[in-house]
Amino acid sequence: MQFTINQLAELLNGEVIGDGNTTVSKIGPLDKAGSGTISFLHNPKYEPQLYTTKAEAVIVNKNLKLKAPVAPVLIAVDDPYSSLTQLLKQYQKLNESLKQGVEEPAYLGEGATVGNSVYRGAFSYVGNNTVIGNNVKLYPHTYIGDNVTIGDDTVIYAGAKIYSNSVIGKSCVIHAGAVIGSDGFGFAPQEDGSYEAIPQVGNVILEDEVNIGANTTIDCGTLESTLIKAGAKLDNLIQVAHNVVIGEHTAIAAQAGISGSTKIGKNCIIAGQAGIVGHLNICDRVTIGAQAGISKSLEEEGSILLGSPAFEIRDFKRSFAVFKNLPNMARRINDLEKKVLNLPPSEK
Amino acid sequence: MQFTINQLAELLNGEVIGDGNTTVSKIGPLDKAGSGTISFLHNPKYEPQLYTTKAEAVIVNKNLKLKAPVAPVLIAVDDPYSSLTQLLKQYQKLNESLKQGVEEPAYLGEGATVGNSVYRGAFSYVGNNTVIGNNVKLYPHTYIGDNVTIGDDTVIYAGAKIYSNSVIGKSCVIHAGAVIGSDGFGFAPQEDGSYEAIPQVGNVILEDEVNIGANTTIDCGTLESTLIKAGAKLDNLIQVAHNVVIGEHTAIAAQAGISGSTKIGKNCIIAGQAGIVGHLNICDRVTIGAQAGISKSLEEEGSILLGSPAFEIRDFKRSFAVFKNLPNMARRINDLEKKVLNLPPSEK
Amino acid sequence: MQFTINQLAELLNGEVIGDGNTTVSKIGPLDKAGSGTISFLHNPKYEPQLYTTKAEAVIVNKNLKLKAPVAPVLIAVDDPYSSLTQLLKQYQKLNESLKQGVEEPAYLGEGATVGNSVYRGAFSYVGNNTVIGNNVKLYPHTYIGDNVTIGDDTVIYAGAKIYSNSVIGKSCVIHAGAVIGSDGFGFAPQEDGSYEAIPQVGNVILEDEVNIGANTTIDCGTLESTLIKAGAKLDNLIQVAHNVVIGEHTAIAAQAGISGSTKIGKNCIIAGQAGIVGHLNICDRVTIGAQAGISKSLEEEGSILLGSPAFEIRDFKRSFAVFKNLPNMARRINDLEKKVLNLPPSEK
Repeated sequence: MQFTINQLAELLNGEVIGDGNTTVSKIGPLDKAGSGTISFLHNPKYEPQLYTTKAEAVIVNKNLKLKAPVAPVLIAVDDPYSSLTQLLKQYQKLNESLKQGVEEPAYLGEGATVGNSVYRGAFSYVGNNTVIGNNVKLYPHTYIGDNVTIGDDTVIYAGAKIYSNSVIGKSCVIHAGAVIGSDGFGFAPQEDGSYEAIPQVGNVILEDEVNIGANTTIDCGTLESTLIKAGAKLDNLIQVAHNVVIGEHTAIAAQAGISGSTKIGKNCIIAGQAGIVGHLNICDRVTIGAQAGISKSLEEEGSILLGSPAFEIRDFKRSFAVFKNLPNMARRINDLEKKVLNLPPSEK
Repeated sequence: MQFTINQLAELLNGEVIGDGNTTVSKIGPLDKAGSGTISFLHNPKYEPQLYTTKAEAVIVNKNLKLKAPVAPVLIAVDDPYSSLTQLLKQYQKLNESLKQGVEEPAYLGEGATVGNSVYRGAFSYVGNNTVIGNNVKLYPHTYIGDNVTIGDDTVIYAGAKIYSNSVIGKSCVIHAGAVIGSDGFGFAPQEDGSYEAIPQVGNVILEDEVNIGANTTIDCGTLESTLIKAGAKLDNLIQVAHNVVIGEHTAIAAQAGISGSTKIGKNCIIAGQAGIVGHLNICDRVTIGAQAGISKSLEEEGSILLGSPAFEIRDFKRSFAVFKNLPNMARRINDLEKKVLNLPPSEK
Repeated sequence: MQFTINQLAELLNGEVIGDGNTTVSKIGPLDKAGSGTISFLHNPKYEPQLYTTKAEAVIVNKNLKLKAPVAPVLIAVDDPYSSLTQLLKQYQKLNESLKQGVEEPAYLGEGATVGNSVYRGAFSYVGNNTVIGNNVKLYPHTYIGDNVTIGDDTVIYAGAKIYSNSVIGKSCVIHAGAVIGSDGFGFAPQEDGSYEAIPQVGNVILEDEVNIGANTTIDCGTLESTLIKAGAKLDNLIQVAHNVVIGEHTAIAAQAGISGSTKIGKNCIIAGQAGIVGHLNICDRVTIGAQAGISKSLEEEGSILLGSPAFEIRDFKRSFAVFKNLPNMARRINDLEKKVLNLPPSEK
């Protein structure tokens, strides 16, 4: 799709400097942009690229004073970065709106209902009595089990799997290969050393505007629900075990793992590969560092933890600085012992 | 589906206190149960909930002495927890038995054979010469390659992928997105720094009653088999590399990783995010803590390890306690050095 | 398929000792081989197995001096191990060449083009305007979005998902469940504590001969490309975040994670469960140990790192040796303090 600079300037409420009839069809960074591409200058340190870029057009700050003539058409705006984000969103919206209707073959179970303007890709599966809201997109190979509810405007990418009885809110995004509602890992040890499975009959609830990354897994609750609250954002390859609760607007980076029945507050940040053991309470606004291992409940808002097992990051960094120096410390203790043991007896 | 309390009491060999004709259709916890729900009281600390619950019926211990009148019908049993498990199993069995037959389109390769009472969901794929046992359930989007054997009563959830030549036992459960039999990570370094793939022509064998969690990956052996023995239970997002052997009734929690050719004994417990390097022997009945890194073979049954690299948990905890205190220890050494270096020379 | 020993000896440029008309159909290790199986003796320590094996034929070094009569037919070659690899490759090539043509139903989007000798498995999906090269294999349930390019001879296993606009080189292997091109984890924090998604409109480029393991996830770039260069080999369950660049012939083991915008050089080795934070530069030929956490850019080729946070492995091992001994060191400091504090004041 092609746009004139005049069209984009109107959308961004910006001023055109140059030929507004120039057309663009792509967005790219200054140093890699080519013909037909619109770019942006946000960080002043990249200004030199403005004079050499091959971009067709560039979004710039309206306060910018040019130091040399420039080849591209400019759109002068209040804040180039937010203009870029705005543009990207329009671009994405256009792209997404292209997917609608049903590609055959697609499976629709008995008693299932589908809202307006829904995309059901080829080989998508919707189980019995499942309810799909308006503007939902089910990419190819998505599996939605029986008795599931999917809220309006939710996008489920290729091959994501939603087990029966899950409840998915509005405006959620679930990426390819994510698994929602698999059995919790509950096994009762028997006297002979074997395990018997404890049936997991709960479900998973995602509230509105939840993001689930690619190949992330969220187990169903044993009896109740595993609950991801509104606005929580989960990255790829994360494990969320049964009965976990994750608070509003908590962000979790890739490969982190949350063990069973742990409750996490709102507005927390959990970095990559961190792990949290089961049955803990993590209060609001906690930050957990990469690869940290949380083994105790956390009650102090604003705390930042690191290490495995984790403790306050400031203390961890101090301990770790000494850890790196331990061989030297060991030598100093040896030296001290030599000196002190050579002393005349103190009682003398 | 609805049941009367009399029906359930007969199943559980319990005594009804109240109106046995009351009907229920769901199972839930005391504090969240509503009308039509049966609940249970196992842990005495939750007894107060018995007097306020909105559950229609509650399973209780037959020795319970009521402290106040209760609204729900009671079923008095020897052990409420095991009665609950029994009930959950019946519930699950009923639910599962509903899935049978073939949803079209489903793909069946040449020479493939399918047992009795099998469910083949829409878009499921069964390769050439593959043998599917009785009562097997293949949910939608399952891929079963060529020359695979699937034992009776095994359930394979949506989108699990079983490569050709795999052997899957009876009564296994394989969750959504799990990958069984992908190529082992075998590459021979060449003189120019590049790698050449070493073909991986072995397979994967799962014995009976093995559980494989969602998005877990199990690579095929190079020449032989990667082998998961009877009753082993694997959680989600676990990596099992080529030629690994995992013993009977060993349980492995989410995101753990086992490197190539390592043999793990029976009745071991491996916690979440633990890692084990390749070519080790781990004896029976070992416990490996969360995020532990095992770099040596383990020969002592009953040992419990923690840390990366890991050692005995008791020793690790002692060392870690000092680690947290290292800055203080560094100061004390400085103080000692000041004092000792101020001393008159000991040879004087 | 059956082969005579004479056929195989010709392929391997070896000499037959015994009946060259003997036929074999499988490859297996000496101690587990049975009738119809060809095996190999590479490591001299396994020579005793040569005299007891039930293999039909064995590939041996031409310099081997037999210590006793052997049952199997022998093929004497220069290097049994490379002969084995050669054989395995032929075996694999034969197996793979069997998959060709289209299994219905398979989906082909508008404007998509497909090369010669391509396999499109049942339920495979090829989006609009996508270009599939010659000899490409798309196993069942593969999803290839719109405007994707797949180079010649690439194999994509069951259920792998390639988002729109990805560029996949020649002779790549992408294993089951891998996700290429999912949205990067980019969210702008808002004043009220919620997050707004930053649209991710870049793509993923895999150059030639790249290996992507099962259930590995590679996010698309925000504006540009996430780039995996030629010959890089990635194992299972790895996370590669947006805008990452991975150099030629770098090998990454299972469950490692690379955060956003980090650039990794060529010929690096990254072990299992290692993590690298975002916006770093890792130079060529670096080795990163298992479970290591890299928090700083690395500029020294040949360095090997361990620990979380990681530093030089030699230093880490020395520090860790003292760490294991910390309780003892604490006692020694206590003892020193007792002695030193009992001393007469040094100024006296």
